[in-house]
Amino acid sequence: MASTTITVTGMSCGHCVSAVKEEVGALSGVQSVEVDLESGRVTVASDDPLPNERLTAAIDEAGYDVVG
Amino acid sequence: MASTTITVTGMSCGHCVSAVKEEVGALSGVQSVEVDLESGRVTVASDDPLPNERLTAAIDEAGYDVVG
Repeated sequence: MASTTITVTGMSCGHCVSAVKEEVGALSGVQSVEVDLESGRVTVASDDPLPNERLTAAIDEAGYDVVG
Repeated sequence: MASTTITVTGMSCGHCVSAVKEEVGALSGVQSVEVDLESGRVTVASDDPLPNERLTAAIDEAGYDVVG
């Protein structure tokens, strides 16, 4: 099991959290997605290490930006 | 056709706008729902005048509050 943590900007409410969780959770191999609205921190547990590009693309698809 | 305008607090993003539109739009007789995120103003067009209690109940159901 691998864990990846990124920081996302632009989430403002619980609906935003749900949108991010849904999009990232749909990536193959993802087991769980934790989102902290205050800090923007998104922690993803996956079977194998998750390529940064795939995670960033999913966040972008949900309508938000990744820091860094 | 009747038009009712109220002010809603707590909407922070486009997902919030969608949630309010969906809940209010589901009320019988409602033709259209316009929401301005910045001001919180919600304008509802309906066949007959919309009782304030029904509108407030729908906003509450969506998870937001009506001012006044």
